[in-house]
Amino acid sequence: MRLDQKLIEEHNAALAGKHQKKLAFFLEENEGAKSLIQKLKDFQIAIPSWALGTGGTRFGRFSGGGEPSNLEQKMEDIGLLHQLNQSSGAISLHIPWDIPEDAEKIMSLAKSLNLKFDAMNSNTFQDQPGQKYSYKFGSLQNVDKNVRDQAVAHNIEVIKHGVALGSKSLTVWLADGSSFPGQLNFREAFENTLASLKEIYAALPEDWKMFVEYKSNEPNFYSTTVADWGQSLLYASKLGPKAYTLVDLGHHLPNANIEQIVSLLLMEGKLGGFHFNDSKYGDDDLTTGAIKPYQLFLIFNELVDGMDHAGIDHASGLGWMIDASHNVKDPLEDLLQSVEAIMMAYAQALLVDRKALKAAQQKNDVSLAQEILQQAYRTDVRPLVAEARLQAGGALNPIDLFRSAKVRENLIKERGSETKATGL
Amino acid sequence: MRLDQKLIEEHNAALAGKHQKKLAFFLEENEGAKSLIQKLKDFQIAIPSWALGTGGTRFGRFSGGGEPSNLEQKMEDIGLLHQLNQSSGAISLHIPWDIPEDAEKIMSLAKSLNLKFDAMNSNTFQDQPGQKYSYKFGSLQNVDKNVRDQAVAHNIEVIKHGVALGSKSLTVWLADGSSFPGQLNFREAFENTLASLKEIYAALPEDWKMFVEYKSNEPNFYSTTVADWGQSLLYASKLGPKAYTLVDLGHHLPNANIEQIVSLLLMEGKLGGFHFNDSKYGDDDLTTGAIKPYQLFLIFNELVDGMDHAGIDHASGLGWMIDASHNVKDPLEDLLQSVEAIMMAYAQALLVDRKALKAAQQKNDVSLAQEILQQAYRTDVRPLVAEARLQAGGALNPIDLFRSAKVRENLIKERGSETKATGL
Amino acid sequence: MRLDQKLIEEHNAALAGKHQKKLAFFLEENEGAKSLIQKLKDFQIAIPSWALGTGGTRFGRFSGGGEPSNLEQKMEDIGLLHQLNQSSGAISLHIPWDIPEDAEKIMSLAKSLNLKFDAMNSNTFQDQPGQKYSYKFGSLQNVDKNVRDQAVAHNIEVIKHGVALGSKSLTVWLADGSSFPGQLNFREAFENTLASLKEIYAALPEDWKMFVEYKSNEPNFYSTTVADWGQSLLYASKLGPKAYTLVDLGHHLPNANIEQIVSLLLMEGKLGGFHFNDSKYGDDDLTTGAIKPYQLFLIFNELVDGMDHAGIDHASGLGWMIDASHNVKDPLEDLLQSVEAIMMAYAQALLVDRKALKAAQQKNDVSLAQEILQQAYRTDVRPLVAEARLQAGGALNPIDLFRSAKVRENLIKERGSETKATGL
Amino acid sequence: MRLDQKLIEEHNAALAGKHQKKLAFFLEENEGAKSLIQKLKDFQIAIPSWALGTGGTRFGRFSGGGEPSNLEQKMEDIGLLHQLNQSSGAISLHIPWDIPEDAEKIMSLAKSLNLKFDAMNSNTFQDQPGQKYSYKFGSLQNVDKNVRDQAVAHNIEVIKHGVALGSKSLTVWLADGSSFPGQLNFREAFENTLASLKEIYAALPEDWKMFVEYKSNEPNFYSTTVADWGQSLLYASKLGPKAYTLVDLGHHLPNANIEQIVSLLLMEGKLGGFHFNDSKYGDDDLTTGAIKPYQLFLIFNELVDGMDHAGIDHASGLGWMIDASHNVKDPLEDLLQSVEAIMMAYAQALLVDRKALKAAQQKNDVSLAQEILQQAYRTDVRPLVAEARLQAGGALNPIDLFRSAKVRENLIKERGSETKATGL
Repeated sequence: MRLDQKLIEEHNAALAGKHQKKLAFFLEENEGAKSLIQKLKDFQIAIPSWALGTGGTRFGRFSGGGEPSNLEQKMEDIGLLHQLNQSSGAISLHIPWDIPEDAEKIMSLAKSLNLKFDAMNSNTFQDQPGQKYSYKFGSLQNVDKNVRDQAVAHNIEVIKHGVALGSKSLTVWLADGSSFPGQLNFREAFENTLASLKEIYAALPEDWKMFVEYKSNEPNFYSTTVADWGQSLLYASKLGPKAYTLVDLGHHLPNANIEQIVSLLLMEGKLGGFHFNDSKYGDDDLTTGAIKPYQLFLIFNELVDGMDHAGIDHASGLGWMIDASHNVKDPLEDLLQSVEAIMMAYAQALLVDRKALKAAQQKNDVSLAQEILQQAYRTDVRPLVAEARLQAGGALNPIDLFRSAKVRENLIKERGSETKATGL
Repeated sequence: MRLDQKLIEEHNAALAGKHQKKLAFFLEENEGAKSLIQKLKDFQIAIPSWALGTGGTRFGRFSGGGEPSNLEQKMEDIGLLHQLNQSSGAISLHIPWDIPEDAEKIMSLAKSLNLKFDAMNSNTFQDQPGQKYSYKFGSLQNVDKNVRDQAVAHNIEVIKHGVALGSKSLTVWLADGSSFPGQLNFREAFENTLASLKEIYAALPEDWKMFVEYKSNEPNFYSTTVADWGQSLLYASKLGPKAYTLVDLGHHLPNANIEQIVSLLLMEGKLGGFHFNDSKYGDDDLTTGAIKPYQLFLIFNELVDGMDHAGIDHASGLGWMIDASHNVKDPLEDLLQSVEAIMMAYAQALLVDRKALKAAQQKNDVSLAQEILQQAYRTDVRPLVAEARLQAGGALNPIDLFRSAKVRENLIKERGSETKATGL
Repeated sequence: MRLDQKLIEEHNAALAGKHQKKLAFFLEENEGAKSLIQKLKDFQIAIPSWALGTGGTRFGRFSGGGEPSNLEQKMEDIGLLHQLNQSSGAISLHIPWDIPEDAEKIMSLAKSLNLKFDAMNSNTFQDQPGQKYSYKFGSLQNVDKNVRDQAVAHNIEVIKHGVALGSKSLTVWLADGSSFPGQLNFREAFENTLASLKEIYAALPEDWKMFVEYKSNEPNFYSTTVADWGQSLLYASKLGPKAYTLVDLGHHLPNANIEQIVSLLLMEGKLGGFHFNDSKYGDDDLTTGAIKPYQLFLIFNELVDGMDHAGIDHASGLGWMIDASHNVKDPLEDLLQSVEAIMMAYAQALLVDRKALKAAQQKNDVSLAQEILQQAYRTDVRPLVAEARLQAGGALNPIDLFRSAKVRENLIKERGSETKATGL
Repeated sequence: MRLDQKLIEEHNAALAGKHQKKLAFFLEENEGAKSLIQKLKDFQIAIPSWALGTGGTRFGRFSGGGEPSNLEQKMEDIGLLHQLNQSSGAISLHIPWDIPEDAEKIMSLAKSLNLKFDAMNSNTFQDQPGQKYSYKFGSLQNVDKNVRDQAVAHNIEVIKHGVALGSKSLTVWLADGSSFPGQLNFREAFENTLASLKEIYAALPEDWKMFVEYKSNEPNFYSTTVADWGQSLLYASKLGPKAYTLVDLGHHLPNANIEQIVSLLLMEGKLGGFHFNDSKYGDDDLTTGAIKPYQLFLIFNELVDGMDHAGIDHASGLGWMIDASHNVKDPLEDLLQSVEAIMMAYAQALLVDRKALKAAQQKNDVSLAQEILQQAYRTDVRPLVAEARLQAGGALNPIDLFRSAKVRENLIKERGSETKATGL
């Protein structure tokens, strides 16, 4: 289904009065904020194809209804999100779940939905039916060269699918690691993984990037072979200029200072992109901004500072993607909430008075530095974000419209209540 | 399959010379240790029915072969373990996975395998086919009384199955909780849960115990309604004398001092039993003793001290059970390793010179107290544990015999390589 | 020094126009918010006497200037804070650092500064010159009855000082615990501590409360004898109706859900009060709201809900106190920032639409519940908090006035730049 | 004081019979173990000059008696340790606490005590009396070039002191960082620190190494400018071949896999050395092996594997040092316990059957790999370690002899009970 654009217009018309009043007040209070609207409009966050169905844990899954059961339906779902918020104009595919049977048809559908193809994702953490060698003991790290070769070949195949769709990057997330002391020789696991990555890297088109994602633990419970930003950076540096580190917010040890990592990776020219989500305990994959919104703001504060310093375009310079799991919410509502939280954090970071902050830092005026950051954070930027959405053709209140337009009900009618999205 | 007892005898005969030499040296070095052998022989650790197949994570599962596909086969597997180590003479069932169609037949099988039925486990963290109400938003805590009633009825049914098999306890582990701020009213969730537990408690036979298990997080990622020992103790105290707290080693926040919790629960007369496993990051469910063997010893040190102080029989006073997941090892080998680690920790705790320790504590002689504990921990107790096994009719080296007797190969021959244990 | 009230008036006059505009807009947008102003005015946060000087770590301390060197000066400092924000009208004393030589004179000074005496704090975590027995191995838990008796007597002396000043509560924070396995018998440490606490409890005046504070670790690094809320509640329950648990935000294991603990303690009628601060790694004692402002809001959300449910007066029903350390900021600025953050979190919690939240919870509408909470949290409540301050006679922008009135410079002139506050 | 060598001989003679019996049994059971004795004898662990007095926390310190009050006495203490265990033949100095007034005299004392001078340690985390600029806001990172220059000059002075004493390395541990968001620009802090380190590096003699130590947090509580191994490696790589990473066991986020870090740093040729200690919560600086002895073994397992693979001499290739704090134990007993635990972990790592382990890894035989590691870990290596000590002229049981020879009592007689070691 697609939303009738009239519905959006009616929704916006009904809210216009209140919105304009708030916006006017906001712009009056925040000098120069008008110029930020274009940045907000340009900022697009990719939706992963596997985030459109209900997720679960090892203990089970409680499916919802109306979930997409093929690539076309997944794209339609993202098209709906993008209609509503005009900030989700990209999809990130996962192979083999999303192999397009007819790339041109898919490209044409994407065009009609105003979607681009963001990073491609390979899968060597599960065995697929008919697969010759098992990934039970790792893929790119495996002690068996046959397994490594199979995993390399799979990644190269993923690149090919991406080329056909106009994607420009490959995200390599590896579950490789060990669950018990002694299981792995860490050094050899690193060397095998590096050698495998080099083969994949060699197959990258000239204008592609490779994102090496790290994760502290899970599904392996003793060691992970790309476990932290230091390891990812080591791989990326040895691979070459097209290789970058990808930061997933939930992939850190407790208490990690992620914003500092972000700053240093930008300094090294090696930050490739982001997987947004939120968490309290581990890789909980909760709605972005649901648990630690201030941390999200601090990360964007470093992103804006570091990208501006390095001359990186906010919208196109890095890969922005959500990677969450929706176990107890409607997946589409959850994604709308995540995108909204990201846009707010970005808007707040744009509001930081960087000149004053710099001056406070130069005087070691710690209280003042905090005041400056919190001045931006405490600002209610919802009118600004809403205005960016409005100007781009989206809805003033996406979740309200999602509900009043009975999107989920219609999807269930279309697809049934027993469908289950492919993927995790 | 069952092992021919001759195999065990041959295995033991071949190792007898070396074993006797080690044992003699051990007994010479550790005065009075001979009297501990009977305690080791009496100590039995229940095996949960769901631990006999390959486990997995939300990212997937890599099955092994020869896994049991029904209750009888699960019991046979535990029978094999018990033949090998003579320390696994109990099974803990999970309903609805293990509903016995014919309780008497099952009882008779158990008798022939020398197995008892340990704690019964209910399941309200998953929806079963045909179930009327969903547990998506919790069971005993649910805002909907219909759901709570269904979950209560299920627990009462579990008790009935247990009564038929001679079990004497019910373990209630609840996934109930919330994944997002605002989702739950904590107080009302507690009150609903308590009211539900009271109904179940009322259905407990006179000589039964109820174990209220706690867990810090997972599968809910913001709050859990029985989240720590303090909450569990609160429920157990309000329920009455038959209710106890159950400690699962992997269910704590990082850095928790589990041995202190154990000591205090014993002091309060409210420690019911244990789920053994090991972990590095969260509820990793690894082989007991694989990551933090010293912590395991310190826990047993408190258990021995506290049970002796309260006059609790080591073997029968508390519930001892493994609760682990075997993702990359043969499940049966993994269980043999867990049991061995538990027996060693217990033996080391028995070796602690408690009189000397008490004296050192009374003088605040911290260095000496550490020396006393580590004197026991550094002692290689394997000869003592092996002797207890030998005297009980088990194998001197269970894993070696498991392998040389080609148990797994035989199970695969019997059951095929594609079977998958029911359960998680 | 005291601030000339004229300075405050001038400051407010200069900001009045902008403030009124923001306030008017705020009240228009937040229906009914006007009625919350009185609650904000009534809400007073006690300042601990030890928080007025520069704090440090075991690695050292970098003192500032103009720090108070006696009780009178400490009270003057808090008087200044209270003049500025009208929310800090109480002081929490620490004995023996703050023993008043002339209680009546101190009472009269307090009156002139509009200050009350909040909870009294004992100190058995350090040895004082001339002290007969050492607390090196604990105080109320000590294996030596002489030490325990000395610590009990000290606490009773603290109560007496408090009675003389009109305080109504005693906070017992114990460093008691152990740094190595084997050092302590946990059970006996608990029993000794309980027996000691009972003696102190017996000396409490009828209308006093005892707050039993817990802390996961530090300065002991293996176990703490009041380590978590479960243990504190156990002590408080065994002591009687005047004993309560005190929650310090920095005293938890990583990832703890503090707001749930708050809710359950309120449910049990055993929440006594709070020590506010913020932290990233451990008991970092940072400015409240500096690291996790959303968590602070969620805690106040539970406080408002739970106090309303139990009919507890927000301002007077519980003890509210800051407990922070100011290593790199001006202590007074730091305290102003903490109080501001607390007032904002309280205001946001008051704004939560509880009826709608309840309805969403009853429908398991998780997305909506999040929207309702975040609607309040995202609201910029600074105009409301400022208005409460203004109506109470404080400054619209306390930190700006603190700086423009050159308070610190004046204090240095008065007291010198080499003074060092007594205390930690 | 020095121990009369006769005392040691008498002590050994009394224990000789029991020891020889245990050793004989050990060597019979562990084929080839005899050849490991020389490795154990060669392995020397440096004692830091600041670890000889009672340590404390920010909450206070409870001093012991007989503590050394100058460099000569500190060296005598280490001389005593070395007499007892023959494994502590090196001292690590801290400037400015240990500035030798007469280097030649100190060298001659060292010679007579059989001690070498290990890594020199600079101190820019505290202000010294008369110091021109303060390190309150960092040293090598400081926004003020004057501060950075002063800190650089201090480090160069430390190198000069080290050259005079024959030391060959400089350990740079920086407290630099920030306690609040906004306080620092992370990138510029890194760049300033790197530029400062480059100046120090330029002053290193040809045959010196620089160790860049990292620490996750404390005494800064938001960010640290050399916070993890990834950052340390980045600095060390940019500095050049004489710069290395130093690993302190207590300086990691919760749950970090330190042994993997060790393996990767060895792979990169950038592991410089170790600070040994143990911890449960943070940088607790407890006795090595007191909390996580298995982790210590796993680290040595990687060290032996990685050093052998890279052809690094175990004894001389890396820097081995204890860095602990002794708050509740006699510092010298504590150090004896730490050294003993390190020697045991090293001995166990040497016992690992690496050929079998490699074979198990190549077959992904995870259970067997665990058995192989634990076979070594469960072996009671105390007879082997004692024999190495005996052959080197040390005591069979250092702590027993320390006590029976009344070393502490004699030190108190000599130095008094009120002395307090300089340092932390």
